[in-house]
This record gives sequence, structure tokens and C-alpha cells, in this order.
Amino acid sequence: MASLRGMQQPELSKKLFKIIKSENHAIGAYESASRERISIASQLSDWGEATGDDSVSDVSDKLGVLLSELGEQEDVFAQNLEDYRGILKQIRNTESSVQPSRIHKAKISDEIAKLKYKEPESTKIVQLEQELVRAEAQNLVAEAQLTNITRQKLKEAYDLHFAATIERAEKQIMLARHGRRLLNLLDDTPVVPGDTRPAFEHAHQARQVLNDAEEDLRDWAPNLEPIHSSATEMGSNLMPPQAGTADTSVSGQEEESMIRAGESSTGQLEAPAPPEHRGYGESSTVAQPEAASSY
Amino acid sequence: MASLRGMQQPELSKKLFKIIKSENHAIGAYESASRERISIASQLSDWGEATGDDSVSDVSDKLGVLLSELGEQEDVFAQNLEDYRGILKQIRNTESSVQPSRIHKAKISDEIAKLKYKEPESTKIVQLEQELVRAEAQNLVAEAQLTNITRQKLKEAYDLHFAATIERAEKQIMLARHGRRLLNLLDDTPVVPGDTRPAFEHAHQARQVLNDAEEDLRDWAPNLEPIHSSATEMGSNLMPPQAGTADTSVSGQEEESMIRAGESSTGQLEAPAPPEHRGYGESSTVAQPEAASSY
Repeated sequence: MASLRGMQQPELSKKLFKIIKSENHAIGAYESASRERISIASQLSDWGEATGDDSVSDVSDKLGVLLSELGEQEDVFAQNLEDYRGILKQIRNTESSVQPSRIHKAKISDEIAKLKYKEPESTKIVQLEQELVRAEAQNLVAEAQLTNITRQKLKEAYDLHFAATIERAEKQIMLARHGRRLLNLLDDTPVVPGDTRPAFEHAHQARQVLNDAEEDLRDWAPNLEPIHSSATEMGSNLMPPQAGTADTSVSGQEEESMIRAGESSTGQLEAPAPPEHRGYGESSTVAQPEAASSY
Repeated sequence: MASLRGMQQPELSKKLFKIIKSENHAIGAYESASRERISIASQLSDWGEATGDDSVSDVSDKLGVLLSELGEQEDVFAQNLEDYRGILKQIRNTESSVQPSRIHKAKISDEIAKLKYKEPESTKIVQLEQELVRAEAQNLVAEAQLTNITRQKLKEAYDLHFAATIERAEKQIMLARHGRRLLNLLDDTPVVPGDTRPAFEHAHQARQVLNDAEEDLRDWAPNLEPIHSSATEMGSNLMPPQAGTADTSVSGQEEESMIRAGESSTGQLEAPAPPEHRGYGESSTVAQPEAASSY
């Protein structure tokens, strides 16, 4: 099914479509690493118990707890990457919906050129030229929306990606450092045949390592350089706040065409977009989900 | 092939055999994540170029460089885990080779018990009891070697595992923080239709971010709480330095049996060990590969 949808992707969104697909594989790899790590953690605890050596048993059991938490963090990371991937989809959907506007404009230009060559006196030329003005206006809106969404969402997506990378890393460093403390509780002085190992003396300290790890995880909070955005005021039409309102004159375009396109009253733009995308005016899949519901 | 070998594993090493197999899957997952991440990095750079927006193009190209390095670090991590996995194998191999010594001892005890019941006057009983003393001595050596290797290598394996976790995490934090600096160079102020975006003003700063990231990676050095080991002096017979020499009396065991077992002159112990394992006295797969070659 995914490959069928891939074949339907408009040219403009093909690259991002492929990236989003590759991210799905990357996320799958992290989920798989998480599952294996958690499974190994519990196997290690079992193995330690089976050695019949109470020091190895206690240390491996607690190593298992830390390893299992390391594995959980891989899964948290994968889920955060899933959110980042969702933001890339918003750019891709806008790309998909801009494509027909480009094609429509080019098609009318072509028709005019052909007619001018074959029937230079045709009255249809005037009609097509009027249509071209509207198509150009519509496309200008679409292209502005595309650049606005692209920049805003690119920053948002990688803000999330890098924040997730840092979160996994900081938490795993804490866990691994506590793991190293645990290892130092295991005495590996070699014994001679017939010697029995003394009982494990550090059970309390080992328990304390886990408590400390839990506390560190609980107290962890992100400490990130903020990503600044100037797109937060963007309207549901994916334009700056003042754009698209009747009393604003925009770059010499006819206001009527502008607003029509901005409100997505033309069926053309919506048709080939993926089902979840609802066209320009309703930016519910893109910027302000709440605002869109009132349309 | 792996599953055939699995069926041949002695009971004692089954759990660790399975852990080592699972680690192989975990390592594969990290290798796969690395490949996907590196591929996505280059796709992102291509996509940015195709947008025709020179700010997006420059920023996405440099994001690609950082993302690719993040992916490389996943692979470095996977290779370090491969080394850790190799250390677990050393414990597993010792476990495999101790199993027959346990079986041998139990078998002789059984035979004696049976004979005492069926033919209490048999002269074979005395002979078997002598054999049992030797088997017990041999097994005591094997068990001491097993506990010595288990503790030493368990610490060594997870020392490596946690060090690798911390290395990946510290390097990825540096890369992700530089990534966030890059994002702040991209202006996402929304434009109105017909506006053209100003040229990208931060090309120099973007280049500087990459230079800083490269420098940070180059300057990185591990900063770890050391794992203490008391097993560093262990001899090639997997015993403390003084053990196994003729002038040391060990725990009431007959010295002759001790040394024989320690030198692995009995074929019994070696037979069912995996091909790469060469028995006790030669600890080449375990502790001192150099020392073993002089045997």
C-alpha cells in the first residue's frame, strides 16, 4: 500500500516522501534495538541467578534494571522521532497540494501559446488570458504558503529531532554512569580451587545505585538553546497576520483572486492532495487545528 | 547454522548463548539505524537544494552533515557493542568447557552408587573412588576458573558497554546542540504572495557551526569513572598468580590432581567445547593470548 501511494506522489513532494519513508525504517530500527535491549536485560538477570554466585546474581539483576531502562530510552527516542516525522509530513502535504497549481498555470500558458500560433484571431485567447491572471494569482498564494510552511516546519521538525537526541543521550549517560558504579561493587579477585566466595557485601550499595538512577531520571529536565520562530503569528491561511484580509493590498495582485485562492474556493488545488490534507484555507493539518474547525 | 550450534550448546552456557545471539540482533538494529540516518542526511540535502530556496538549501545541506555524523556515531556504537559481545563469548566458552567436568564427576558418583547396591563386594568400587577423587579435583579447578573468568569478564564486558553508551551520547549531544544553532540561522518569518525571500545572510555562520562541530568531535576524550579489577594478575591457567605452582598447597586438594587439571592434560574437558576454545590451561581465548602461544 505504501508503494502504491508512493507512485501517486506529485513530483514536488517525491523527495520528502522518500525521506519520510526512510525515517520510518530508522524508527523501526530504534524500536527493534529497544526491544532487544529490554529482552537482554531480563536474560542477563536470569543468567546471573543461574550462576549460583550471589554477588554475580545481585549485580547482574541490577545491571538488568539499568539496561532495561537504557532500552526504554531507545523507545522514547523512537516515539519522539515519530512526532518529528509527522511534522515533515506537513511540509510534504503542502508540497503535494501546490503541484497542481503549478501545472494549472503552465497548462493555460501552453494553451495560449498554441492558440496564438494556430488561431491568432480566436476570441478564446482573451478568455484564457483572464484565466491565466487568476491562475497566476492562485499560484503566488500557493508558493507563499509553501515557503512559509517549509521554513516553519523544517525548524520545528529538527528542533524536535535534536531535542529527542539530547534527551536520549543525557538520560543514557546518567544510566551508564550508575551502571559503572554497580560494576565496581563486584569483586573479581581470582580464587583458588576449593575456595568459596565470601557473601556479597554490597547489596545495600547496589540498591542505592538504582535509587540514585531513578531519582536522576525523575529530576531530569531538558536544558536546550531555544529555537526562535517568527512564524508563530501565521494565520490559518498560512500567511502573515495582515495578509489575506480585504484592507491589505498585496504585491500588486488583484485582491479578489488572492482571497479566493486563500480561502481555497477552487476545487483544483484540493483534488490530488492526500486524503488527510484539506487544502489551503483550512490549515488544520498544518498550523492551527483549533481555528480550522470553525470553518 | 547458528541454530544448529545453539542445539549443541551445553546446558550451562545456554543462557549466555542466547544473550549473545540477542546482542547480535541489537547490534544489527543500530547498524541499520546508522545506515538509514546517513541516507536520510543526504536525501535532506538534496531536498533542500530542490526547494530552490537558498536559505533552506544551505541550512539543510549543513543539517545533513551533522545528521550524517549522528548516524556515523550509531555505527561506532554498534562496533563497540561487537567488542563487548566478544567478551561475553569468553564467559560462554568457559561455561561450555566446564559442563563436561560436572557431568564426568556426577557419572562416576552414580556408577559407584549403583555398584554398591548391585555388587557391594566389587573391587571396581575402589578403583572408581580413586577416579572420583581425581574428577572432583579436576572439577574444583574448572569451577574456580569459571568463577574467576565470569567475574572478570562480566566487569570488562559492561565496562565497555557503558563506555560505548557514554561515548555515543556525549558526541551526539555535541552534534545536536550545533544542529540547534544551525536552525536558528533560518528565518521563518512568513511572506505574503509575490514577496521574494532575501538572500541567505548567514552562510559564514553556518559554515562556522560545522567547523565547531568538527573541532568538538576531534577534542572529545572519554571521561569515565574507572572500573577497578583485581583480576589483572590472573595467570594463563585462570588462577591467582600463586595458584597451580608446585610449592603452593591449595585447600586440602592433592597437588598432583590440581596441576594435571590446571594443565588440561585430560582430554575429557576439551572435547565438547566450541572449536575456537582450546581448554583450560591454554587460556588464549580468555585472558592472555600472548602467553598461550608459548605452550
